[in-house]
Amino acid sequence: MNALEVIGRKRDGGEHPPEEIRFLLDGYLGGTLPDYQLSAWLMAVCTRGMTRAETLELTRAMVASGEELDLSDIPGVKVDKHSTGGVGDKVTLVAAPLAAACGVKVPKLSGRALAHTGGTLDKLESVPGVTVDLAPDRFREQVRAVGLAVAAQSPRMVPADRALYALRDASATVPSVPLIASSVMSKKLAAGADAIVLDVKFGRGAFMPDVESAGELAAEMVRIGEGAGRRTVALVTAMESPLGRGVGNAIEVVEAIDVLACRGDPELTAVAVRIAREMCALAGVTADPERALADGSGLERLWAMLEAQGGSRQRPPAVHPARLAVPAVADGWVASIDALQCGLAVIDLGGGRIRKDDPIDHAAGLVIAAPVGTRVRRGDPLVHVHAATEAVAGRALSRLSGAWRLAAGPVPAEPHVRRRIDRDAIGDQEGHAGRLAEQGRGRDES
Amino acid sequence: MNALEVIGRKRDGGEHPPEEIRFLLDGYLGGTLPDYQLSAWLMAVCTRGMTRAETLELTRAMVASGEELDLSDIPGVKVDKHSTGGVGDKVTLVAAPLAAACGVKVPKLSGRALAHTGGTLDKLESVPGVTVDLAPDRFREQVRAVGLAVAAQSPRMVPADRALYALRDASATVPSVPLIASSVMSKKLAAGADAIVLDVKFGRGAFMPDVESAGELAAEMVRIGEGAGRRTVALVTAMESPLGRGVGNAIEVVEAIDVLACRGDPELTAVAVRIAREMCALAGVTADPERALADGSGLERLWAMLEAQGGSRQRPPAVHPARLAVPAVADGWVASIDALQCGLAVIDLGGGRIRKDDPIDHAAGLVIAAPVGTRVRRGDPLVHVHAATEAVAGRALSRLSGAWRLAAGPVPAEPHVRRRIDRDAIGDQEGHAGRLAEQGRGRDES
Repeated sequence: MNALEVIGRKRDGGEHPPEEIRFLLDGYLGGTLPDYQLSAWLMAVCTRGMTRAETLELTRAMVASGEELDLSDIPGVKVDKHSTGGVGDKVTLVAAPLAAACGVKVPKLSGRALAHTGGTLDKLESVPGVTVDLAPDRFREQVRAVGLAVAAQSPRMVPADRALYALRDASATVPSVPLIASSVMSKKLAAGADAIVLDVKFGRGAFMPDVESAGELAAEMVRIGEGAGRRTVALVTAMESPLGRGVGNAIEVVEAIDVLACRGDPELTAVAVRIAREMCALAGVTADPERALADGSGLERLWAMLEAQGGSRQRPPAVHPARLAVPAVADGWVASIDALQCGLAVIDLGGGRIRKDDPIDHAAGLVIAAPVGTRVRRGDPLVHVHAATEAVAGRALSRLSGAWRLAAGPVPAEPHVRRRIDRDAIGDQEGHAGRLAEQGRGRDES
Repeated sequence: MNALEVIGRKRDGGEHPPEEIRFLLDGYLGGTLPDYQLSAWLMAVCTRGMTRAETLELTRAMVASGEELDLSDIPGVKVDKHSTGGVGDKVTLVAAPLAAACGVKVPKLSGRALAHTGGTLDKLESVPGVTVDLAPDRFREQVRAVGLAVAAQSPRMVPADRALYALRDASATVPSVPLIASSVMSKKLAAGADAIVLDVKFGRGAFMPDVESAGELAAEMVRIGEGAGRRTVALVTAMESPLGRGVGNAIEVVEAIDVLACRGDPELTAVAVRIAREMCALAGVTADPERALADGSGLERLWAMLEAQGGSRQRPPAVHPARLAVPAVADGWVASIDALQCGLAVIDLGGGRIRKDDPIDHAAGLVIAAPVGTRVRRGDPLVHVHAATEAVAGRALSRLSGAWRLAAGPVPAEPHVRRRIDRDAIGDQEGHAGRLAEQGRGRDES
């Protein structure tokens, strides 16, 4: 096979047969296809797109590049949950224990904070003693015994995704729906769950700018999941303002515990219950996550998981004191909170990372006093800044003071979940529903 | 400036301000922008295109990367002539001496054979003693004294084009009108002529497949030339069948001499006179190339040039004997001759090159006995194969026997020159003529 001919096919808008996709990926990983050829191909994909068959083949080839987790000896339907990343997104820490309490087996491999978004692994590591590095046998055993495990992906899984992502990141070829979808889904498929619930976020604090592009990405990922034989459901959710009240690692674990103790932010609670319901539905479980919330069994399940991974109820995560508050500069109603600025503010506090190896101050973060819709008077606190010192807290001030937008009158509440996309919404490749999904539309929820 | 942001602009279909074009080119030449970033950008250009302003800026930046030839101390309008490459294209060897005989100063830097197309430098080197490596002072002096010099480009001129072309060749990013146009025109601009006549070829034996794509390329090159203050005219010409009767280095020099001695192929003669007329017009010279043909002054000028570069009338180029002929397999009229197969056949004979450093047998080649339109009987010779040995000649047989297509009846003659594109055809950037040219149309000649 001739690399120039293969790359030229995508340059000219053609479709690769499966063996060409494997040729490119294997050649790159094997060192026979140089960086500058693969980056040219990646750019051709960014501008020309990929067909469903090409995207599925790329995903499969990436999965085949490394080890896969075999969960087949755990009885029942195993359900994974994945978020495309947001600010203050602690939904996994609430929804997964609720689903587990309902009887769903939840084996989840998770990621770390990147750019302005948080990562579940970093949040878990804010709990003293907790490890996220679980060997496959220990991971499987915990899922069987506790019903729930959240751990880091082994470096031996999907090495092709890491190699490809590093090159995309360095060659301006990140923004491509098929490349993003195959990157996410290759990790999900390798992680071995039978079914997947995807939370695809859009808005200021997410990687997709609007509901249409997020819907397109969600449909692509559902197509890959179903194409690979995994039941897959995606919710498209808003990430214009931070989700819930806390942003920061320990702060978000504390908030998740509060939600599971029925004293959390109502919108966050509703979203987590909704996600848990989707997980239960895919597992064929009839128990109600609302009940697992009310009777405390969800909270119990979170602690059981944290204990299985080395934590203890006697040692909750430590949060820095609130060093200062950002006051409202006028009377009004909170119309929006810029999630991106909040995420970047937490990086300023040391609570996030810009580069992969940056150390993190797990105890730093924000607690929002005036969420969207709140009426405030001039001088009221909008957000409390928790940081190691007052000087560090001060670094976040300028971003945060610009993040709150006030309106003169009451602000109508907008729904958090905007669309739901499942195999019926994407249909088969020839049908009407398929064409609908191709245009990025699922079932509208707004 | 951020490389990823700049590359991302072209990925998303945007337009670069001039400083971004310079940033990319300077960064690549300076080693701060890696291969895999520039190849991604080149692919984005292949799929998204470039505006006129971007293409002109890229051309200028390439010219600025090296030395430029200063011809300002030679009196009169200096006119360059360039062909985009074809099979049997010896027009330069006829048109340039005719124009020089009419009083035009012709300083021409030329190229070597590449792929199936020939190169004027290799043709000249088939003449014993002739050198194409002329230092700038000698080149200028020869143009002043003889009116005509054809030499190799110095490696210190347009180094950016060589670097870019090597990467394009290795990353499937060659076929892009703005990239091809800026590559050709950067070399023409650096060579210092005041005006340029372009022969843009299309068809089986050329790099552009059809008259539309060749017209688009021609318009782009005229725009660059005029944008850089050089009078530029382009002819779009057919290269489906080889031009004239000979293909091969010494064979083509001999044929050029025959044309200048008024015993050449009529179509080739007409095309060369037409090109020479365009050169005279741009130089403001009123003498008639037809006259320079008839009175032998054109032939005289060719020999004067060859002698100035080391050759002698006593030592004409050597041609291998005709080792075999390809016979017609049926009665009929010659409808077409596959120029690509003829070009590849000459490579099989050792008369062309696949890689840049391949040695060339200047004495090998083809002489066409039955050009397009000829009536042939079964067994008549179609083409004579000149090669070092009969065994070598045999290598070209299979290609050549498939290259002649016969028709049952007479074949109507098609015009060789199909379009003429000048500054009036491209107009200014806003006008009607400009929009016409944007669609690849010039004045139709068919």
